[in-house]
Amino acid sequence: MAESLNPEQASPAATREDMANAIRFLAMDAVEKANSGHPGMPMGMADVATVLFTKFLKFDAEHPEWPDRDRFVLSAGHGSMLLYSLLYLTGSEVVDIEQIKDFRQFGSKTPGHPEDFITTGVETTTGPLGQGLANSVGMAMAERMLNARYGDDIVDHFTYVVAGDGCLMEGISHEAISLAGHMKLGRLIVLFDDNHISIDGDTDLAVSDDQLERFRASGWHVARVDGHDPEAIAVAIENARNVTDQPSMIACRTVIGFGAPNKQGTASTHGSALGPDEIAASREKLNWPHAPFEIPKQVLASWRAAGARHRDTYEAWMERAGKLDAAERSALVEPIDEDVAIKIKNAVREAKAQFVAEESKLASRQSSQKMLERLTPLVPHLIGGSADLTGSNGTLTKAHTPITPEDFSGNYIHWGVREHGMAAAMNGMVLHGGFVPYGGTFLVFTDYCRPAIRLSALMKKRVVYVMTHDSIGLGEDGPTHQPVEHLAALRAMPNLNVFRPADSVECAECWEVALLSRTKPSIMALSRQGLPLLRTEATDENLSAKGAYVLREADGERDVTLLGTGSEVLLAVQAAEALAKEGIKAAVVSMPSWELFEAQPAEYRREVLGTAPRVAVEAAMEFGWHKWIGLDGAFVGMSSFGASAPAKDLYNHFNITSEAVSAAARSCLGKD
Amino acid sequence: MAESLNPEQASPAATREDMANAIRFLAMDAVEKANSGHPGMPMGMADVATVLFTKFLKFDAEHPEWPDRDRFVLSAGHGSMLLYSLLYLTGSEVVDIEQIKDFRQFGSKTPGHPEDFITTGVETTTGPLGQGLANSVGMAMAERMLNARYGDDIVDHFTYVVAGDGCLMEGISHEAISLAGHMKLGRLIVLFDDNHISIDGDTDLAVSDDQLERFRASGWHVARVDGHDPEAIAVAIENARNVTDQPSMIACRTVIGFGAPNKQGTASTHGSALGPDEIAASREKLNWPHAPFEIPKQVLASWRAAGARHRDTYEAWMERAGKLDAAERSALVEPIDEDVAIKIKNAVREAKAQFVAEESKLASRQSSQKMLERLTPLVPHLIGGSADLTGSNGTLTKAHTPITPEDFSGNYIHWGVREHGMAAAMNGMVLHGGFVPYGGTFLVFTDYCRPAIRLSALMKKRVVYVMTHDSIGLGEDGPTHQPVEHLAALRAMPNLNVFRPADSVECAECWEVALLSRTKPSIMALSRQGLPLLRTEATDENLSAKGAYVLREADGERDVTLLGTGSEVLLAVQAAEALAKEGIKAAVVSMPSWELFEAQPAEYRREVLGTAPRVAVEAAMEFGWHKWIGLDGAFVGMSSFGASAPAKDLYNHFNITSEAVSAAARSCLGKD
Repeated sequence: MAESLNPEQASPAATREDMANAIRFLAMDAVEKANSGHPGMPMGMADVATVLFTKFLKFDAEHPEWPDRDRFVLSAGHGSMLLYSLLYLTGSEVVDIEQIKDFRQFGSKTPGHPEDFITTGVETTTGPLGQGLANSVGMAMAERMLNARYGDDIVDHFTYVVAGDGCLMEGISHEAISLAGHMKLGRLIVLFDDNHISIDGDTDLAVSDDQLERFRASGWHVARVDGHDPEAIAVAIENARNVTDQPSMIACRTVIGFGAPNKQGTASTHGSALGPDEIAASREKLNWPHAPFEIPKQVLASWRAAGARHRDTYEAWMERAGKLDAAERSALVEPIDEDVAIKIKNAVREAKAQFVAEESKLASRQSSQKMLERLTPLVPHLIGGSADLTGSNGTLTKAHTPITPEDFSGNYIHWGVREHGMAAAMNGMVLHGGFVPYGGTFLVFTDYCRPAIRLSALMKKRVVYVMTHDSIGLGEDGPTHQPVEHLAALRAMPNLNVFRPADSVECAECWEVALLSRTKPSIMALSRQGLPLLRTEATDENLSAKGAYVLREADGERDVTLLGTGSEVLLAVQAAEALAKEGIKAAVVSMPSWELFEAQPAEYRREVLGTAPRVAVEAAMEFGWHKWIGLDGAFVGMSSFGASAPAKDLYNHFNITSEAVSAAARSCLGKD
Repeated sequence: MAESLNPEQASPAATREDMANAIRFLAMDAVEKANSGHPGMPMGMADVATVLFTKFLKFDAEHPEWPDRDRFVLSAGHGSMLLYSLLYLTGSEVVDIEQIKDFRQFGSKTPGHPEDFITTGVETTTGPLGQGLANSVGMAMAERMLNARYGDDIVDHFTYVVAGDGCLMEGISHEAISLAGHMKLGRLIVLFDDNHISIDGDTDLAVSDDQLERFRASGWHVARVDGHDPEAIAVAIENARNVTDQPSMIACRTVIGFGAPNKQGTASTHGSALGPDEIAASREKLNWPHAPFEIPKQVLASWRAAGARHRDTYEAWMERAGKLDAAERSALVEPIDEDVAIKIKNAVREAKAQFVAEESKLASRQSSQKMLERLTPLVPHLIGGSADLTGSNGTLTKAHTPITPEDFSGNYIHWGVREHGMAAAMNGMVLHGGFVPYGGTFLVFTDYCRPAIRLSALMKKRVVYVMTHDSIGLGEDGPTHQPVEHLAALRAMPNLNVFRPADSVECAECWEVALLSRTKPSIMALSRQGLPLLRTEATDENLSAKGAYVLREADGERDVTLLGTGSEVLLAVQAAEALAKEGIKAAVVSMPSWELFEAQPAEYRREVLGTAPRVAVEAAMEFGWHKWIGLDGAFVGMSSFGASAPAKDLYNHFNITSEAVSAAARSCLGKD
């Protein structure tokens, strides 16, 4: 056994059965009070959780942010009452019994699904199935990566996951499982709640996988136990901990709604309150005569003892961590402290000056690569990667060495063709703490990882998505690979920076904002094709940080304002020059980030946009642009999917040209 | 062997090596001419494809739309030249040698990735990895479902898939494989191009799965062969065909770029032209002295013989099919012919009358369920299903019986927790022909299936997505389950109907449009919460088909126009009533479909929107709304993610109320 302290000894009257039943009744009673929620899963997994939390999990309830705690991820997030019960019972400061009673109510610390940004002690936000499992792969990688940097004295912990049938049916589970096996994540242990029940009914309705064989095929250690046999569970976890070069999966055969005499083992316990009669019957069956939300003193004491049993370990760790130097200590949780931030700002300023001096004409994916080469040595915990498009995305530089199953000291991850798994694992790395990850694929494949991007945004996690080939400029690969609606789809998402830089200078500026946005993920939408330098004068100020700015003012009062982003800003500039020859005064506004522009003071926005008619150009759908151009403005861009052809032919075919911008401007002014 | 006719006998001079080399050189030369594309895969899989197309695949090049043909799906779509070479060589009418020379050029029939809507003979649009594999599961299900209805004489074919490492790394592959195994799709045969190379380099960089064991764990028959040994390939395919109660996967160990003496077996052959020197060296090595795009007469003759060898089978089939009655024959490819369309229209009219008569107050997901109960008996090839949210989505009715591995005669599919697999398999069913599928999940989980929804739209396939719980009205499950940006993200996509009906009558109307939109997929965004009837007068006209219409005209000239969709139209109506009491004349416009409204004549749009200031209300992000409200309009809705609480509390907290709409209207009019 991993622990010498046995809660039964500390509080002889509390049996492990009673400790598990405390979870069950908190779950039943809270769901009943809310008349909403999922009691079946916490009731089924109560025994497994009790073994884990009392015998294995290294944590200290008073210090939920201890960097070297074991991570506990409830991937089957609908069973949130399992987690809230455990937090309350072990002595969480934020989840007290009032919060349990307030389950699923507005403003409580106990929302319907676990939300890490609401409740301290919740490791990640789950509910969308499979995400927690994939997060945990990122956490377990981050653990090894920090371990390679700090050694066993500072980083040495496990990551435990509870996953259900639903998690394992989702596609993302394959990406996570396959990656974890490849990376030989011996400190990742998945407890599969094998209850044979899904919402529609018995899992036999829809799935016949042999999950043990499936995990084994991806290089996992696997075991099967009776999820209501505490000794067997403990042996299985102990064995899993001893397998150091493979992740482990323990299929725990459980009865959903265990203890509800008439409903257990059926889908009716899954997603709704059991009702007063069934709860009363459960109280009788499980010999639990206590009132709702009342936990007998000794049961609570045993749980509290479990929550405090690592206090010495924690304090010893703090002493060791106290010997780290300030930068090391800081990087353990936040890799970009004030010192690093200053280095980033300086590097961006230097890069901009150099781009201007060299009159760079680079695809923005190349400018991005140059920035990464410059920034990586300055931010040692900046971790790169790509979902098997490394060369195309420009994510790898001379400053990188790969992370491999044998050596986690590097800083580049070959994620494989696993966009969704990559994004969710990057979330897991940030949740774990200690790293700023970026990962690349084509912009069109944001669709493949959108659920995880959404969680980056919801959880306020700094993940940088390097999304190249950002328009029909991708060319011959055709409409399956050409994003047209993706900029709009991403801009519509709350708390997400969407950057589309127009040249090398803007690219440098956008990287600065992305890295310094500690509570926001960023999308870098980058061109395949070369872009001439438009910001030809060196400015120390980060103009992109304002979201939009006047790139070229008109010579005199504006007749028209031309708005553009990314590769199409050039078309606006060319149009402005052509219009000037006709005596039409056009200003050009570059808009690398709508979100940042919206956050500017109204006066600045008015100044930039002006009062003249507006024409926007972007090689994408017009969706969303009317916020800037109004009902009377004009838009030059896409109105359909793209096509397969060389990029130049496509721009001509879809009439996204400087001539089209000029014509639209003339038309707005009634001069066509 | 399945075939007695042997191409070598038909044309003694053409060896199978030469036939395979014809594919290799067409691929090399076309990529070289385009200076863009992926030669390595066609070169590696040429031997496998030659065996399949000459010995097994039941097809007739002159009749590429023969309903009972075997389906051939190139899931690894970047290897498009494999498919185009085969089409040309076997005698396709559309892919001639000029098209091969025009590979990846604008307007050609040979785009960068296979596009079914461009090229007859291409079974599905691939490139986004894993999609073709999941389509093929839908095709193989459709085959069994039609077989259960028509018998072996009419429907009796295989579905073959070529998938690469990338397809098998994508999460969607798990959903597809797991589902196919569960459904025991014995006529699905996957040929895995096991070449050990991905774009970043050797697959060892990122993946260590034992693919055979993985497929076996999901109930597949598996085999491993040398992908350059024609006899072994033929034996493996023959064995796979004989396993009737399991899908089959044959791992074909191939050398990517086979025949390129210096580059074969490396990532450098994957995604770019080989260059003239390497192609010259390949000509020497493979003893292929012919000029680019020149196929020796006898090689071509042998291929053409292969493309015609099922002519008798085809003709015999046509004779049998000729004996079907007209409705049966029609339903085999298009389940909604004119007769069925009339039945649908009548049913919708009757339903609307009944909703009005009963003053229905139903959640739109319940209205939808009532429509499905009414429509299903009228459209025998309408197939329902849900990704394990059957009860919540209202997708199952008394008119349904489940499809099971043992009996495909039913009309309801329990898809399991596999949103992405469901969507892609529904695409496959439509591609196969014979069915109109709809499938349900929560609207927020459109993110999980977005790549497949995009392909429904790109391929112009009628798939209906029943997406319920369409706002914060979902309540306690919280922000992970509450869509806020999804309506915008979906509306931004080309060729997709997004419906958000306001009441039962609109719901009925939207279903009519969805089912009759033969070349468009539809999203039905449906409420969890009850909605009172707003269309209280029976109208035969389908007002929702216009996208937006005046639900309540103002009493006199409009002071303000209130726009809304779905559950929030009620708030607009209530606001209009409140404003009327203050003497403010407000019209209410319901906008169940932006796309359909955009397609209306400008005059109608002007009439509906009016010239008065506009206020929009929708429990979603404002993104996109400025197209309707202009720069000066007001929006009442969300500006962040949601929260976990009862729905009513959330509407109040986020200030989406009739009072907020009234206040916004007053503010627009300067009366606040």
